[in-house]
Amino acid sequence: MDLQDVLEDVAAGETTVEEARRAIDGYTRVDDFARLDTGRADRAGIPEVVLGDGKSIEHLRSIALSFLEERGHVVLTRVDEAAVDTLDGVAHDIDWYPESRILVLQTAAYEPPEPDGTVAVVSGGTADVPVAEEAAVTAREMGCTVETFYDVGVAGIHRILSEADALARTDAVVVAAGREGALPTVVAGLVDVPVIGLPVSIGYGHGGGGEAALAGMLQSCTVLSTVNIDAGFVAGAQAAQIART
Amino acid sequence: MDLQDVLEDVAAGETTVEEARRAIDGYTRVDDFARLDTGRADRAGIPEVVLGDGKSIEHLRSIALSFLEERGHVVLTRVDEAAVDTLDGVAHDIDWYPESRILVLQTAAYEPPEPDGTVAVVSGGTADVPVAEEAAVTAREMGCTVETFYDVGVAGIHRILSEADALARTDAVVVAAGREGALPTVVAGLVDVPVIGLPVSIGYGHGGGGEAALAGMLQSCTVLSTVNIDAGFVAGAQAAQIART
Amino acid sequence: MDLQDVLEDVAAGETTVEEARRAIDGYTRVDDFARLDTGRADRAGIPEVVLGDGKSIEHLRSIALSFLEERGHVVLTRVDEAAVDTLDGVAHDIDWYPESRILVLQTAAYEPPEPDGTVAVVSGGTADVPVAEEAAVTAREMGCTVETFYDVGVAGIHRILSEADALARTDAVVVAAGREGALPTVVAGLVDVPVIGLPVSIGYGHGGGGEAALAGMLQSCTVLSTVNIDAGFVAGAQAAQIART
Amino acid sequence: MDLQDVLEDVAAGETTVEEARRAIDGYTRVDDFARLDTGRADRAGIPEVVLGDGKSIEHLRSIALSFLEERGHVVLTRVDEAAVDTLDGVAHDIDWYPESRILVLQTAAYEPPEPDGTVAVVSGGTADVPVAEEAAVTAREMGCTVETFYDVGVAGIHRILSEADALARTDAVVVAAGREGALPTVVAGLVDVPVIGLPVSIGYGHGGGGEAALAGMLQSCTVLSTVNIDAGFVAGAQAAQIART
Amino acid sequence: MDLQDVLEDVAAGETTVEEARRAIDGYTRVDDFARLDTGRADRAGIPEVVLGDGKSIEHLRSIALSFLEERGHVVLTRVDEAAVDTLDGVAHDIDWYPESRILVLQTAAYEPPEPDGTVAVVSGGTADVPVAEEAAVTAREMGCTVETFYDVGVAGIHRILSEADALARTDAVVVAAGREGALPTVVAGLVDVPVIGLPVSIGYGHGGGGEAALAGMLQSCTVLSTVNIDAGFVAGAQAAQIART
Amino acid sequence: MDLQDVLEDVAAGETTVEEARRAIDGYTRVDDFARLDTGRADRAGIPEVVLGDGKSIEHLRSIALSFLEERGHVVLTRVDEAAVDTLDGVAHDIDWYPESRILVLQTAAYEPPEPDGTVAVVSGGTADVPVAEEAAVTAREMGCTVETFYDVGVAGIHRILSEADALARTDAVVVAAGREGALPTVVAGLVDVPVIGLPVSIGYGHGGGGEAALAGMLQSCTVLSTVNIDAGFVAGAQAAQIART
Amino acid sequence: MDLQDVLEDVAAGETTVEEARRAIDGYTRVDDFARLDTGRADRAGIPEVVLGDGKSIEHLRSIALSFLEERGHVVLTRVDEAAVDTLDGVAHDIDWYPESRILVLQTAAYEPPEPDGTVAVVSGGTADVPVAEEAAVTAREMGCTVETFYDVGVAGIHRILSEADALARTDAVVVAAGREGALPTVVAGLVDVPVIGLPVSIGYGHGGGGEAALAGMLQSCTVLSTVNIDAGFVAGAQAAQIART
Amino acid sequence: MDLQDVLEDVAAGETTVEEARRAIDGYTRVDDFARLDTGRADRAGIPEVVLGDGKSIEHLRSIALSFLEERGHVVLTRVDEAAVDTLDGVAHDIDWYPESRILVLQTAAYEPPEPDGTVAVVSGGTADVPVAEEAAVTAREMGCTVETFYDVGVAGIHRILSEADALARTDAVVVAAGREGALPTVVAGLVDVPVIGLPVSIGYGHGGGGEAALAGMLQSCTVLSTVNIDAGFVAGAQAAQIART
Repeated sequence: MDLQDVLEDVAAGETTVEEARRAIDGYTRVDDFARLDTGRADRAGIPEVVLGDGKSIEHLRSIALSFLEERGHVVLTRVDEAAVDTLDGVAHDIDWYPESRILVLQTAAYEPPEPDGTVAVVSGGTADVPVAEEAAVTAREMGCTVETFYDVGVAGIHRILSEADALARTDAVVVAAGREGALPTVVAGLVDVPVIGLPVSIGYGHGGGGEAALAGMLQSCTVLSTVNIDAGFVAGAQAAQIART
Repeated sequence: MDLQDVLEDVAAGETTVEEARRAIDGYTRVDDFARLDTGRADRAGIPEVVLGDGKSIEHLRSIALSFLEERGHVVLTRVDEAAVDTLDGVAHDIDWYPESRILVLQTAAYEPPEPDGTVAVVSGGTADVPVAEEAAVTAREMGCTVETFYDVGVAGIHRILSEADALARTDAVVVAAGREGALPTVVAGLVDVPVIGLPVSIGYGHGGGGEAALAGMLQSCTVLSTVNIDAGFVAGAQAAQIART
Repeated sequence: MDLQDVLEDVAAGETTVEEARRAIDGYTRVDDFARLDTGRADRAGIPEVVLGDGKSIEHLRSIALSFLEERGHVVLTRVDEAAVDTLDGVAHDIDWYPESRILVLQTAAYEPPEPDGTVAVVSGGTADVPVAEEAAVTAREMGCTVETFYDVGVAGIHRILSEADALARTDAVVVAAGREGALPTVVAGLVDVPVIGLPVSIGYGHGGGGEAALAGMLQSCTVLSTVNIDAGFVAGAQAAQIART
Repeated sequence: MDLQDVLEDVAAGETTVEEARRAIDGYTRVDDFARLDTGRADRAGIPEVVLGDGKSIEHLRSIALSFLEERGHVVLTRVDEAAVDTLDGVAHDIDWYPESRILVLQTAAYEPPEPDGTVAVVSGGTADVPVAEEAAVTAREMGCTVETFYDVGVAGIHRILSEADALARTDAVVVAAGREGALPTVVAGLVDVPVIGLPVSIGYGHGGGGEAALAGMLQSCTVLSTVNIDAGFVAGAQAAQIART
Repeated sequence: MDLQDVLEDVAAGETTVEEARRAIDGYTRVDDFARLDTGRADRAGIPEVVLGDGKSIEHLRSIALSFLEERGHVVLTRVDEAAVDTLDGVAHDIDWYPESRILVLQTAAYEPPEPDGTVAVVSGGTADVPVAEEAAVTAREMGCTVETFYDVGVAGIHRILSEADALARTDAVVVAAGREGALPTVVAGLVDVPVIGLPVSIGYGHGGGGEAALAGMLQSCTVLSTVNIDAGFVAGAQAAQIART
Repeated sequence: MDLQDVLEDVAAGETTVEEARRAIDGYTRVDDFARLDTGRADRAGIPEVVLGDGKSIEHLRSIALSFLEERGHVVLTRVDEAAVDTLDGVAHDIDWYPESRILVLQTAAYEPPEPDGTVAVVSGGTADVPVAEEAAVTAREMGCTVETFYDVGVAGIHRILSEADALARTDAVVVAAGREGALPTVVAGLVDVPVIGLPVSIGYGHGGGGEAALAGMLQSCTVLSTVNIDAGFVAGAQAAQIART
Repeated sequence: MDLQDVLEDVAAGETTVEEARRAIDGYTRVDDFARLDTGRADRAGIPEVVLGDGKSIEHLRSIALSFLEERGHVVLTRVDEAAVDTLDGVAHDIDWYPESRILVLQTAAYEPPEPDGTVAVVSGGTADVPVAEEAAVTAREMGCTVETFYDVGVAGIHRILSEADALARTDAVVVAAGREGALPTVVAGLVDVPVIGLPVSIGYGHGGGGEAALAGMLQSCTVLSTVNIDAGFVAGAQAAQIART
Repeated sequence: MDLQDVLEDVAAGETTVEEARRAIDGYTRVDDFARLDTGRADRAGIPEVVLGDGKSIEHLRSIALSFLEERGHVVLTRVDEAAVDTLDGVAHDIDWYPESRILVLQTAAYEPPEPDGTVAVVSGGTADVPVAEEAAVTAREMGCTVETFYDVGVAGIHRILSEADALARTDAVVVAAGREGALPTVVAGLVDVPVIGLPVSIGYGHGGGGEAALAGMLQSCTVLSTVNIDAGFVAGAQAAQIART
């Protein structure tokens, strides 16, 4: 239904007021929702992300194809190599990040977002890299330049200090850290750009699985926001939102 | 010590290489630290914030005076009216927010940051307002225009929907919510600007004290970062950082 | 704005299609929200409930007056006797339940919901009564007949067994229990009507404060739903919803 | 023993008062229990449900056969396809729900409950569907008409809004949600029928495994009761109890 | 109703079988419950215990008087000295244990249980004594001889070793311990009599409030059962049950 | 060394006082410990129990053989059938309980403890039986007569009520229960003999894995002690200790 | 009893072997324990520490006097000024640390331990100082030289870096930190001497009360041991043990 | 760059003051960091330790080779036998500890630290040995003499008592304990040398996985520091640090 047509019909006397009212009652509901929906669909480059964990390969393939058709682009996280084999060939471009188990597919027609903004992704140890990489891939897919600073943990504090100036030149910083999770606090004490803490589920015993890191980031005495444990996609997407404003 | 002078003295033969080296060894350490320190001191308007909880009035007064002297400006949070009485008159300007128990003091010479950026502060219920207000005051002290949207909780979902456009026109959104903490997720599903969740320590029983709200924000299926329970200052300061970039 | 008028004006040529469209765009948003809002306001007798904990007497008085004016009726929970004194005289009817600290106010013009449905409220020990009473008052204010069965805990199992038939004749049962919280399970094993568990924050040590009771109800091997610890209002309101359908 | 016979024997002088008394002492015990037991066995259609997790196929088969013989009907939850193969042919009717891993068996002689009442089952994302489906199958086996509303999560709030009227026409609503678990709160804010929250064990990190969803539902500022994480059977059975009253 | 009378009336032809049956249906229910109730009332000396915490003095007084009338004896735990003043004079005998805040009242007619069995009550530090004393008073009121071994904690392991023989001569041992709660494990490794661990809510920081002690007792590699934190009455009563068998 | 000999040598002048003193210093230490050790070895029938979980078959076999040689008897818990095959033939008697995965081995020379005392082992559902059986086997190996009451859970409360008299005739009762763990409370409300709660690690979601059951038993309003989740051996051994005194 | 005498009496024929044996049996037990006890009493200067929290002033006074008499020295922690007034005059020397609420008393005859070893006490913020001071006082009372480094938190990382050399020259380092507790990790990454983390119960919200700090120290990727939250005495005493070896 | 050269060039007029300043600005940063780095690399024998868990064999091999080249020595923990096979032959010396799954590799040129200090490693049960062994290997690789005292748990308290003197002669004691974790408290009550508690992740049910042991060590009433659950490397390394000072 087209509101313009209805009103023109009313004006032309081709529709009674009563009929028009019924039509509009339906329209307003539908249109209102549609507006919201389109707003959502048009968002500046937050990629559709599908969590692979616990999904069968057939299910993943079917979801991926549907997003490719609709959006021309899809990011699959936590997928196995078997999924890569299955999806090989379904898209024009396919990028596979084996360490972080991320798969990015896009059609030939897909137009990536305009390049804009720089995001730094920092990690404390090599074990944090897969989660950090999920943030990096996300920000890159959203059109940001991504600079990575890996293996700069607090136990050797000089490593992060020597990168302070480089970090300060970016627009937003994601800091991935497991175990005691102190790195985001140190970084936020060094630079003025917004810093997002990304706790990583490494570390065993009390406070293991990322819980100590999360709690430490929430308790930080600096200005720092946080995402959930291992939520690399959320950290990368918010950093890109910030970097692009 | 001034490195320039030392080197000029070496060039002029007034200082031996050995003496210069010793001086520089000390200097580099000190200067390096000083540089970091100054970097910290010069940060674009993150105000010095003093937590009043558990400090005696004399202690608060002495800290406040020392910051006023050094920075010309100080924000005291969670202070009682008795503190306001004690500090009345010590500063040129004094702003007291009784509901959120925040006190802002500044000298006549203090130059507030240049106005820049707009931050929205949203809250679900009247009980969330004191914490939301802490975020609002912080962002305002950092030079941002702050728009507040209070009492727009998810139980009456239409209230927040009707504000979607207004929210979308700001640069960053802080959403304070206690109990089930669903409001930041709804807001982040409506707008494209970065959203920071601010859990509030209301609600009793299981998940009370803000823990359900915090967990819900971390689990959110939208793009959302989070600060600790009741950390209004952190949320407001990061929103201002984002809004000002 | 009235859609009928707009459309009639269009039909009469007194409004252009363009003007009408702008009006309707606004209307649909507003009307859609208004519809939801009215839906909420008209709900069959869920009373407006105000939590007294942590509110000043002035604040409580002002909220109570505003609800009385708007709805003719308000329930205040967890209030002190001082609040009762303050509010004495502001309403036509005032009911004060000192043990459960509930205060019900209503104007002369207030029309309570039509009587319908019977709710049983069961509690294990005298310490559970204040919370149980909160459920009972809520259901009664929603127009239900309420039958109470207090002090029928599982340690003397015969006490609840002897009430099985009486419970089975009600439409919904709220069972308040602290400590080990086994009573709702026993009741749900005896009767066919829907049973709602209401954990009570009594009991010290491990699992104290109602957490053991809540966990036990969630783990129950019978058909039983649960509300939060001490959430007497929610239990009573849902029981009344069920009893009135 | 038959009480009638004893009393007639006493009346006829064929039994002494003493003998009768001893017989009745035993009888009352037995009869009292029997009465309770029969009450339980006759309950209106709560199906016998067997949890498949951790049981061997032989054990499951033997339990299923015993219930089929006794009740003519059994529901097995969380079973593997191997169990389906094993049980194929043992019953007249066999329904297999592979996604939610539920198996329903019934004999030819089994008379299902009279159709009565309508239950809505709502879920936020496709990952919640298996648990939601457990609730739906349960309510259907108890004689209710079940309407499902899947994939209507809060991140795209318009999806659930557009179903508000349809939900309001049912007799009880089960809302399954994982992660932040906000959907039941939104639904309970839209409709007047009793709403039961069903937390789902999806989501990783802090508050993962359904704990954030559970806590959020318990903290809800609406009228909402809750069952344990993944307890689809309990939610469906209580919704059916409500819908059938 | 008296079953004897009913049956005699039937035998005498003064009551029809039908009337008798109706009477007995009621009777059996009531009598069955009464039997259980009496069984409970006759239990070998488990004293009625009233928790004073959170009860008003008037409430305590009224409960105490009602138990005195019915049972001739009552134990009040966690009461203040004000309660002692109020109850002074209401009973023939009054025993006040100020450190553990226990008050024992009994009438002149009260016949305490026959002396039988010996219970040892052990505690690690002086801070554990009030809770240990609650166990000791309870066992004594149940007719046991109680031997106390206070201040024999594991940090000076020789203190408990030197008491091994004395402990081994009792019938049951209660070991109260806070902080790390290791003492019950050491005792259970020394003696053959049943040992009941009684965690005490002392200790701050992680595992404080008795949680570490409770967990340690549950994890004990010896044969040891446990009661809840500070549950001196339960530990003492079970020890007395054991000692008296 | 033999103290008697040393002293006789001193008396006979064959040993100097100095040599004797050195010998005794060593002796007292060794002897003191030996006394304790022997005390431990002689304990009335607490069988040596080896936890099979996580041990290799070779390791288990070697431990089992060493205990058989030393004590003539050993109980292995949580072992797989492979262990049974490996140990088949090493002992005169071998008892294998497949459901509870317990293996009891004894030599021909082993003299079991004198029969004494009766222990009741109660369980709520079939899922609790393996853990209940661990308690039963332990008590039986310690010389007690064991009576089992399985599948008498609180959801059908009459089942346990009908066993009240039988339970009351035993010397100690172990009640195994998972999920909400209410059964031990009901049993302890029915009988006077000491009751030991045994939480079982069944149940999923919040409070799953036996935590709700444990907390409920600790919170019980009856006289009840508790052992750790799944600690069937500890419960059975303490019940036997009690039954044998 | 003196073993030497007994043996000499045996050698001299003044005691029979039998009498000697009985004496020695007692002796060995008593002496063995005594030896341990004396060992404990003689420990190199671990002062007797009394926790003031929750003790009445009379109780504190009596404990303090008894230690003064026995040991000549006592440390009271967490005491109020009222305790200081009460104890004023009972000892030759009295030291009162108002910020950390520690009171040290000693007699004129008391000989403090020989000065030996240097302990560094580091703290991140002024709020950590009272707990840090408890460690410092303890180490000082044990004879160590104590150097304090306060207000050197990680948010301004240069502050602790500039103290690296001074820290490296001590024998043991205690690092007190609340909130995110990252400082001990940074210190342990800078110096080679043993570092003990001391979590402090500051910080609100998730991970507050020192729990995040404790978990972070346990998760530290450096070599670091930890004591409980606020356990300043334990940290100071172990640092002194290390520094004095 | 060499500061000496720069200054000499300035003195010789071959470099302008401006050029020198730029060079020094860079130098100071780099040099400062280098100094810290070297400090770290030179640390007295804390071996580089690589956690094998979750790393592929190729990854482990590559890390091991890189450390061997750089440091001549590497310790791999939690590795499988497959890793041993892969690394066989890459180093001059290879030590494989199968029970604790530790692999130590060193080149022919590697010079181990000078032997110094004695560390005792104590464990309560055989299940604690693998973690205890990790501490022992670490201390040995750091040049300490290691004495082990295994299977001396508190349930048979005499076993540890008989080793008190031997323990007191070492320089530092690591005590590994799972379940209730009481052993470190007992040891710290017996000896004066610094004791480090090492909780072990054995034990099931409440407080299992080492949490009860950790909490108990933190709550210990003796002087005791603690490391994380299963952190054998940290405990061994700190004990060696202490033993070598």
